[in-house]
Amino acid sequence: MSEVINKATAARQAAGVMNRLTTAQKNEALLLVSDALLTEQQTILAANEEDLAHGRDNGTSSSLLDRLKLTTARLQDISDAVRQIVELPDPIGDMLDSFERPNGLRIEKRRVPLGVIGIVYEARPNVTVDAATLCLKSGNAAVLRGGSAALSSNRAIIAVVREALSRSAVPADAVQLIEDSSRASVDEMLKLNGLLDVIIPRGGASLIQNVVQNATVPVIETGAGVCHTFVDESADYGMAKAIALNAKVQRPSVCNSMETLLVHDRFAGRHLSELAEAFREANVELRGCEATLAFAPWATPATEQDFATEYNDYILNVKVVKDVDDALAHIARYGTKHSECIVTEIHENADRFLQEVDAAAVYHNASTRFTDGFEFGFGAEIGISTQKLHARGPMGLPALTSTKYRVVGNGQIRG
Amino acid sequence: MSEVINKATAARQAAGVMNRLTTAQKNEALLLVSDALLTEQQTILAANEEDLAHGRDNGTSSSLLDRLKLTTARLQDISDAVRQIVELPDPIGDMLDSFERPNGLRIEKRRVPLGVIGIVYEARPNVTVDAATLCLKSGNAAVLRGGSAALSSNRAIIAVVREALSRSAVPADAVQLIEDSSRASVDEMLKLNGLLDVIIPRGGASLIQNVVQNATVPVIETGAGVCHTFVDESADYGMAKAIALNAKVQRPSVCNSMETLLVHDRFAGRHLSELAEAFREANVELRGCEATLAFAPWATPATEQDFATEYNDYILNVKVVKDVDDALAHIARYGTKHSECIVTEIHENADRFLQEVDAAAVYHNASTRFTDGFEFGFGAEIGISTQKLHARGPMGLPALTSTKYRVVGNGQIRG
Repeated sequence: MSEVINKATAARQAAGVMNRLTTAQKNEALLLVSDALLTEQQTILAANEEDLAHGRDNGTSSSLLDRLKLTTARLQDISDAVRQIVELPDPIGDMLDSFERPNGLRIEKRRVPLGVIGIVYEARPNVTVDAATLCLKSGNAAVLRGGSAALSSNRAIIAVVREALSRSAVPADAVQLIEDSSRASVDEMLKLNGLLDVIIPRGGASLIQNVVQNATVPVIETGAGVCHTFVDESADYGMAKAIALNAKVQRPSVCNSMETLLVHDRFAGRHLSELAEAFREANVELRGCEATLAFAPWATPATEQDFATEYNDYILNVKVVKDVDDALAHIARYGTKHSECIVTEIHENADRFLQEVDAAAVYHNASTRFTDGFEFGFGAEIGISTQKLHARGPMGLPALTSTKYRVVGNGQIRG
Repeated sequence: MSEVINKATAARQAAGVMNRLTTAQKNEALLLVSDALLTEQQTILAANEEDLAHGRDNGTSSSLLDRLKLTTARLQDISDAVRQIVELPDPIGDMLDSFERPNGLRIEKRRVPLGVIGIVYEARPNVTVDAATLCLKSGNAAVLRGGSAALSSNRAIIAVVREALSRSAVPADAVQLIEDSSRASVDEMLKLNGLLDVIIPRGGASLIQNVVQNATVPVIETGAGVCHTFVDESADYGMAKAIALNAKVQRPSVCNSMETLLVHDRFAGRHLSELAEAFREANVELRGCEATLAFAPWATPATEQDFATEYNDYILNVKVVKDVDDALAHIARYGTKHSECIVTEIHENADRFLQEVDAAAVYHNASTRFTDGFEFGFGAEIGISTQKLHARGPMGLPALTSTKYRVVGNGQIRG
């Protein structure tokens, strides 16, 4: 048998045990993991240095090396994050519904673990701990397949995690790392119906699309965001400028940052020159529609392709629209159903926007950057779902659960 | 463009309108549909007769012809079922959560339609109406691809439905029938990410597996059930016999019927001969493990394959097990996570079974045949989900919805 099947089978066995653990048992195990990440930090940092050296030899970009790099401070943050997961309420066992039928059957709907969760992600060792511990807290087993550039780091981390679990009621086999770094191991995971209950991809667009296009196991699609901010005719200029700049430049590399600014033509006439200048000062390259170019002649003309692109960079499309309908039509065409914002003082327009835009999160007078599990108060986040099934938007622990109907009778049969 | 893309695009446009309709508008449209199915029944029955004649010419089995056949009485039932959907509460707009963040952001989580739902099903004209009207009530557009043997019936039904909708606020384009009866039209639907939000297969195992194996659009898997009844040592004989017989023979062709009876060996020693005889009298063919054959020497030896088979017929596997653990292990190995039952008077055993069996519905002292939207009191059912994502078990209207976060601020930006 392959590594993937062996480890998924071991995870499946462990999932049967996980399902029966108490919250206290799971929390105790997580605290051991949190501690071990600190006490074993020299081993982890040494392994991480191997990955970094290998990356430097291969000419890996400095931004990728930065995402790969662990330090004492970062390990402390990662360890602290595990302790925060301990503090979160355990969703397992929650009663979501309870009713009695006329024939006397008593039916309860309760939260149960999903079972075995496959996570496919990039070379980010922090995700290894984060994904594993969120899965454990919600009673699931995890099969992790991280990017090959972080393999040494991940091996060291998972060895530490599993050793800590072996001193707890949580079976060490509830956390599995796939070490085969070939594409074949991902392909195999994607077809592992029966052993994996769900696969969650975390990473860039090509990683996610590979999973969505090839998985037969159910997938929770995360991440891709071509997010818009629509500045309506009546918008307050100061507020609009603050929200738009925040949405673009506070952290351009993430999925909830803005890619396209839509500006009502009357607002544009009054303020677009000044607003465009503010983006130029913030080192943002503008790509504009024809009308925009009249206000910012230094901008590049935007193409059809630009409006569909998630830049995750200091680049912004700007389009002048004639009204709310025009803005809604643009978002319906180019949006990825992630996060969309209207800045307006007209409540009727805000209501239409909040109602009609089809997205995980729609905002009135606030930055799209708030679409985030921590900002929403969920205390943790396994990702941001951009699909409509199961979970939509920031996913906290309940998104890692399923439900079960428990039906108790006294001999009822169907007539 | 192909028929599938044309019609899915039209459905997508209509979904934007559906999202804005009131409950009253949707109900009014459904009442027009219910009426039209009766006033236009001659057209529908004539088209159905074409399908039946074609089926008879092709040597279609009498059971399939029966599922295809419409009559005045059946159309009345179908029309009545639409009126029952009118009576159900509209899930759209329901507030599932509402909270304010320390920075003043007000966040609401509300139910919204899924959008465009693809339904792939067999030659059952009643499913055409049922699926279309459940989708409409929950604010969705539907793209229906029924079995080719029912094409004339489906064309006539959908023409009646769309004509009725054209007299209402619901756009006729919210219901689309794919008439291309080649396999290619199904394959095309399965890859239509962006136009279809979800595909729900309804039908036999091969139809469902084709969808699960080939879809890139998210799928809600329904239906396949290898259900077990475990009769524990302490079970009341009369109750055990009534539940087991009901689970097998009340309607063997459906997914919540029992395929394997597990019997504690002490119970077997006292009662299995008599119980086996009761199944023989009910014309059920038994396939037994070695121990079973001692009590029912006329039974056939059961193979490994038999235990994994959904017969949907008057055939039953019987296996003697030594305790609850043995029963749990068998179910974990061969069950399809649909419906599982324990008959016992020992509460500890019942609790373990309800807790540890991983299935959509687990029963203590009641027939598995109750896993059904109507029996659970949901008033309607689009299918029974056997997956763990999104919905599990009988799916009522809320299973046809997603959620949206509406976030209202007064200029908040992320720091």
